This record gives sequence, C-alpha cells and structure tokens, in this order.
Amino acid sequence: MRILGFNGSPRKYGNTAKLLYLALKAAEEEGAETKVFHLYDYRIEPCLGCLSDEQLACRYPCVIEDDMKQLYDEILEADGFIIATPIYWYAPSGVTKNFIDRLTAFENMIFIEGRSLLEGKVAGLIAVGNDVGAIQLLSTLGTTLNTMGMLLPPWSVAYYSKKGEVLENEQAVLDALNVGRALALAVKEEHIASWYSTKYKERLDDLKRDVFTYAEEMKRKQFSERWKAISRLLEER
Amino acid sequence: MRILGFNGSPRKYGNTAKLLYLALKAAEEEGAETKVFHLYDYRIEPCLGCLSDEQLACRYPCVIEDDMKQLYDEILEADGFIIATPIYWYAPSGVTKNFIDRLTAFENMIFIEGRSLLEGKVAGLIAVGNDVGAIQLLSTLGTTLNTMGMLLPPWSVAYYSKKGEVLENEQAVLDALNVGRALALAVKEEHIASWYSTKYKERLDDLKRDVFTYAEEMKRKQFSERWKAISRLLEER
Amino acid sequence: MRILGFNGSPRKYGNTAKLLYLALKAAEEEGAETKVFHLYDYRIEPCLGCLSDEQLACRYPCVIEDDMKQLYDEILEADGFIIATPIYWYAPSGVTKNFIDRLTAFENMIFIEGRSLLEGKVAGLIAVGNDVGAIQLLSTLGTTLNTMGMLLPPWSVAYYSKKGEVLENEQAVLDALNVGRALALAVKEEHIASWYSTKYKERLDDLKRDVFTYAEEMKRKQFSERWKAISRLLEER
Amino acid sequence: MRILGFNGSPRKYGNTAKLLYLALKAAEEEGAETKVFHLYDYRIEPCLGCLSDEQLACRYPCVIEDDMKQLYDEILEADGFIIATPIYWYAPSGVTKNFIDRLTAFENMIFIEGRSLLEGKVAGLIAVGNDVGAIQLLSTLGTTLNTMGMLLPPWSVAYYSKKGEVLENEQAVLDALNVGRALALAVKEEHIASWYSTKYKERLDDLKRDVFTYAEEMKRKQFSERWKAISRLLEER
Repeated sequence: MRILGFNGSPRKYGNTAKLLYLALKAAEEEGAETKVFHLYDYRIEPCLGCLSDEQLACRYPCVIEDDMKQLYDEILEADGFIIATPIYWYAPSGVTKNFIDRLTAFENMIFIEGRSLLEGKVAGLIAVGNDVGAIQLLSTLGTTLNTMGMLLPPWSVAYYSKKGEVLENEQAVLDALNVGRALALAVKEEHIASWYSTKYKERLDDLKRDVFTYAEEMKRKQFSERWKAISRLLEER
Repeated sequence: MRILGFNGSPRKYGNTAKLLYLALKAAEEEGAETKVFHLYDYRIEPCLGCLSDEQLACRYPCVIEDDMKQLYDEILEADGFIIATPIYWYAPSGVTKNFIDRLTAFENMIFIEGRSLLEGKVAGLIAVGNDVGAIQLLSTLGTTLNTMGMLLPPWSVAYYSKKGEVLENEQAVLDALNVGRALALAVKEEHIASWYSTKYKERLDDLKRDVFTYAEEMKRKQFSERWKAISRLLEER
Repeated sequence: MRILGFNGSPRKYGNTAKLLYLALKAAEEEGAETKVFHLYDYRIEPCLGCLSDEQLACRYPCVIEDDMKQLYDEILEADGFIIATPIYWYAPSGVTKNFIDRLTAFENMIFIEGRSLLEGKVAGLIAVGNDVGAIQLLSTLGTTLNTMGMLLPPWSVAYYSKKGEVLENEQAVLDALNVGRALALAVKEEHIASWYSTKYKERLDDLKRDVFTYAEEMKRKQFSERWKAISRLLEER
Repeated sequence: MRILGFNGSPRKYGNTAKLLYLALKAAEEEGAETKVFHLYDYRIEPCLGCLSDEQLACRYPCVIEDDMKQLYDEILEADGFIIATPIYWYAPSGVTKNFIDRLTAFENMIFIEGRSLLEGKVAGLIAVGNDVGAIQLLSTLGTTLNTMGMLLPPWSVAYYSKKGEVLENEQAVLDALNVGRALALAVKEEHIASWYSTKYKERLDDLKRDVFTYAEEMKRKQFSERWKAISRLLEER
C-alpha cells in the first residue's frame, strides 16, 4: 500500500506541511508506505489545453517534458494521494492548480482506453489559510478528484483557518491524522477492479424504456393535477 | 444492503426523477434494496438553529415533530442514499436544502456520542438543470455529505444540463446507472467499523513533537535562505 | 432611496441579525430608508419549478399565493437589498433558499418582457457561522444575484466565522457597516437605465465576422506552430 | 477610460479569446480604450506566500521580478479588467491562478496603506469550457475580485459550455458584448472616491451599543419563548 503527499505550499515548515506530515504518519501506522513531494521543488509547466484542439491529443504520457513525468510515475504506482495546499483566494495555489490541470492526461484516458488512470485510487485533502475559504477550496478540489474517478473516504478532508501554530489545535491535528488513516483503511478494504461500468450499454434500451414507462405513469398521476393547478392560478391573474 | 433515493424535485416524472430511478435500478442489480422518497410529499420544517443557542441542544431525535421523523428512521437503517435535485440557482431546491439542514441532528451527535450517525454510509448525487450550475451544486453538496462522515465512491455524481429528454442522452444515463452501482459496490466491500478515530489522543503530544521537530528542521534548511531572498528583494526597493 | 434587509436566521437577536442591523444603520446614514424582514416570520412556499414544464409559465406574479406576494412588492419598490443568513452546511438556510428560488419569478421576466425585474438593483450579503463555509456560501449567492441582474459594489459582503459575540469583533462590525454604505453609495451614483442591451443584435453579423476574422489571423499565427509542437511531441512517443 | 482584457487560455484563437475580443469591442464602443494580454505569453512566477511568514512582507511592488511588473503597471492605470479563462477542472487555468495569486500584492496594501489598490475598479469574467463547471469558476473568481475591492456590475459574467464555434451562439455573443458594455457603463457613472470607510471607527462604541441594545430587546421578545419550546420538546423525549 502506497500513499503519496503533495505539498502545494512554498513553505516546507508551515502549517500546511505540518498537517500533511501528520496525515502521512497516520497512514504509515496503518501499514502504508508514504512519500512527500513539495510541488514548488518541481518544474510543472502549465497545461497546453491540447484537447481543445483535438480531444484525443490529451493522453498519458503528456506531451510536455518536465518534472511531471516523475510525479505521473509515482502516482501510477500509488494507491492514493493527499493534496495539501495553502488557501490562496479560496482556491489552491497556482502551483497546485498547474499540477491538477496536468492530471487531465490521466483522466482523459477515458476517451482513449475507456478508463481514467486515477479510477479507484483514494484521495485526501488538506487546506490551510487564515481565512474562510477552506470549504470553497475543498469542495472544488474534492469534486475534481471525485469526477476524475477517485474515492473520497469519510473524514478525508482537514483544514485550519486560524493564525498561529496548527499543532496547538487539537481538532486540526486529529482531523489531519484521520485523513491519512481513512485513506489507508479505504485502500485496505477496497478491491474493486473497475468502478465505472459500461455493461449497461447492451441493455440500455430496456433500461430506458422501463424508466420512461414508469415516469410516464408518474406523469399521468401527477402532471394533469399539477398543471391544472398552475394554469388555474395563472388564469386567476 | 439498503440504498435510498431522495427526489428533491417537485416533479416525479422529470429528468431529475428519471436519473434517480435509473441509479436505484442499478443498485438493485447489485443486490441492494431500494426505496424512493419524493421530498415534496413530506412536511419538512426548516431547521431552528438550536445549536446556535446551545451546541448540545442539537441532537437526534430533532426537537421538531414532522415527517423528518420517518426519513430519519429510514436513513438510520440504510447503508447509504442518493440525493437527486434540480439545480435551482446553482444549488439544491429549497426543499432539499431544508432536508439537508435537518441532517445536522445526525452529524451533531459527534458532540453528544462522539460519532456522526451518518459515518461510513455511502452517498451519491444527481443534479439536473438547464444551466451550468451543476458542479457548484455537486461540490457544495458533496463536501457537505463528506464532512458529515459519508463516503463518496468513484463516479458517485451524475448530472444533466441540457434541455430535452434525459433518456436520450447516453452519457447521463450511464452516469446515473453507475452512481447506483458505485454505492452498492462500496457498501458490499466496505466493513470498516469506525472511520474517525480518536485513538491518537493518548499519543498526541508525541505526534505533535515529532512533527514540530521535523518542521523545525525543514525551517532551518529553508527559512533563512527563503527569508534572506525575500528581504534582499524588499531592500532593493 | 430604499434598501431592504432579509434575515434568514431563525434568531432575531443572533450574530447574523446584528450584522444586518449594522449594515442597515450605515445605509440610513447615507440617506436610505431601510426595512428589515425576518424570513422565518413569513410563509414562503417552495418553488414549484413551473418553468421545467413550460419556460413561460414562470413569471411575476408567481402562481403561489403566500407571503412572498408582500416581499415581491417590497423588493420592486426598493433599490436594493441585503441578504443575511446563517451558514448551514456552507449554504444559506433552507428558508433563505426558498426565498431565493422564488426570486426566479423576477428573473425569468427576461423571457417574458426582455428584462429581469431585479436588473440594476444593488445587492449585499452577510454570512455568519462557526465554520469555514462563508466563502462557499457568499460565492454561490453572489453569483446568483449577479446573474439575476444585480450589481455587487466593492465590499458588499461581510462574514463572521467565530464563536462568541460578533459585536466584539471590530473587523466584522466595520465590514457589515460598509456593506450598507456601499449599497447606498452605489444607488446614489448609479442612474443607468438599462444594463443589458440587445442593441448589438442588428450588427451581430458584423461583430461576429470581425472577431472571426481576427481570431483566424491569430490562429494562422499561433496554431500551426502550436500544433506542430504538439504533434512532434506525440510522434516522439 | 481604460479597460484591460486578460486571456488565460493557451489559445489566442479559441472560444475564450473570441468572447474576450467581443467584450473589449463593446467596451470600446462605450468610449473605453482597451488592451488584451495573453497570460501564456508572460512569465508569471507563482506567489511565494511571503505574508504567511510576515503579514507586512506582501506589498506592491511584489518582491518577484518577472513580467507581472508590466501587468501591475497596466492594471494600476486602468479602470477595470476582464479575466477570460478556459474552465480547467471547474476553475481557472493554472496560469490564470498564478496571475490571481499575484494580485494579492495589490490587495494586501490594505494592511500597509489602508486601501486595496484594486478598490473601486470594475471587473468582468468570461469562462469557456465544454462542461458544467462555469458557475463554480465564476463564483469563486467573482467573490475573489469582489473581496479584493472590485465592483461587479450587472451582467458582468459570460460563459459558454458547449462544443463548437462560440460565434454561432447568439446568447454567448450577446452576453460577452454586455460584459464589456457593463464595465464601461459602470466606470462612466461611477465616481466614488473611497468605497471602504473607517469613518465609523470613532463612533464604533455607540453603534455597537445601539445594536446590542436592540438585539437584547429582540432576544427578550423571542428567546424565552423559543428556548421554552426547544426545552419542552427536549424534555418530552
């Protein structure tokens, strides 16, 4: 079991980094190997948006030759990862965003090989900043990773939004530890070969017809009454 | 295995409902019992915000006597649920929002019994509306359920943002089916008794000291150089 | 000049209400008449989603007969309003959400009369809650009101995310006062008859052709080089 | 009157760029000088997060010497700007995000000189991408610019979320034109010297006392009844 940590803060000693170290520690205690990467130490060029010119041009490996090559390899061999980022304007740091944009090369494999290369991996998130933007960041980023095919276990996010030493804040410390633990637990218990299935395709007409018929029944029951009420109210005006 | 569906649309025959029916169908095929609830059929009073007066006043069962009582019971006995809602101004319908607000009585049990009553249950989301607000809705709601203690499996969200019959849109149909399937798979494979652990508490000082020491080392290595650079640049002005 | 305040909290004496009172006070000092409405005191039924059945069925006055009738009238005669809401799960309270959903009857007049009845009115927002969800709430709600046609002046949002008496927090108090002031200033200086113009329609072909031609020039300059680079990199694999 | 356009797309000929060109055209027709900057052409280093080490270390001019120097100068002399960005994972491109992060040097002048250097400037937003993430992006970015002190006029956002040529979509074209027009109108009519006022500081005690007294009255009226109801319901359990 292998869980990575990506630090999107320019500081390796700040609150963001500290919570990440804690999370990885807890993952280790559950049996995971871990490794931390400070994104500011890597040359990560911005996404070129190739898929806007041609959907199939975006694929793994990405056409850009830079340090993402190493990070791509690490992610492919891992069971999941934690992204820890400072909150810059209610969103990840620009460096973290470039990293995320470049993960598209994994996700877009859906259109090449029928499967996101991130599918089924587990994700955790840590956000730190002296403001109230944590949830805006966590919700955008959580949905991003979830729609790339990743699993978000319970308690997979931690945040800290005050000034001062985060290690003094028991809640934040416990939350960060549980991010690492939850990821490891989810990996241990989780052996689902493929999460997204197209097996329904061969029966799609049947499935659609069944639902259409059922919805028509519902419409018969509800619509005339509903529309009558709306129409009557409109006419009364 | 039991998976519920909550329809937050006033229409039982519209696109929101149809995608929900599909998702529940796929869950059934994986062995789940399912049940659909049309929230507009229930009297769900708005949250009174008791915890703003007194944190421990908010608990299950909620002080309000209305149809949530029945929904609370159903949720407690289920392994997870799907919320399907129309997109009203980039957010769930008001009826759906009242339902969500009332789930606080489950989540706030953290402060009463040390555990959210939703912990470890699985969640799926469906959003339908003729606009571009789906992700705003899904991210807010996904983070809400995740921070209530629920697990979001891969491909646990589906959406449709066009006009016209959703059953004509293969991607939306497949996505909805996979929401139901993913939830069922996640329940089947998942037997983790407790996701959030406070076992770290007894070793908290050690854990904090270790990380503090490590971060201090990082600071020694990085800070003086970093600050020297920043200071020099500031002085040059 | 008339500026309204809508309190979406069940408590008329809590931090949400206090910041709203302050904002209205500052608006009064700039010459505005103000009035506060506690939404929990009004019967505001949920939106019926008529426009999903028929786009033109949603219009002012709304078909539902309830206390929104009075609030609609007040809003029509006002130059703007402030919505103050507690933060329930990173979003407005369900009661506030029902109020917002019902504003669709104003906005959808675009399709009936070519103009949102909220166009050009000014909006301010106040969010209070002991968590980090303020920005998620403010961003969703700000975008909602802005895309309904309202103007958001600088410093038109205030929030408070700590426990305890908000009046002890100078920043929150000053911010709330400035929400009211900013709205009043924006109304005083602002006399634009119509914000959204369709005057471009008669020259649309010219405008589109000009931009198309310009973009083609840019494509000629950038695309071949860009695509050559992408293709070369792809081939090297 | 001077309004700038920042293109955060790697493509100067794509839909993002086209909508930006349209918006600037409409601004010109209202009398604005305009200028477009393709952010991918500039070397914009990531924010170093100096203010996490020391709040006052972040100021204009930023310590980083790169092409932002030129962009800072342009912004200072302009009355407002439009940011146009592709939608990469429900958020601006990483390049755009680095640009935004670096604007902190303007905003943080609040703590140095008592005033954000962006205060009162007008902002518009354009987002383009073949997915449903537009509102997530626009809401985060709109709140960012608004809380930096900028004014968002009515109809100041435009988006396009389909495949294919944007110029064929009349709604998107009209919306983009109106973004430029709205900014110009807002500049023309708007001559407010200072939007955020601290004039309240000298009367802060009075203001707080008044509101406290009023809220206490409200509490006296509402709380005992409210709490009695809650307590009674709790006791009945």
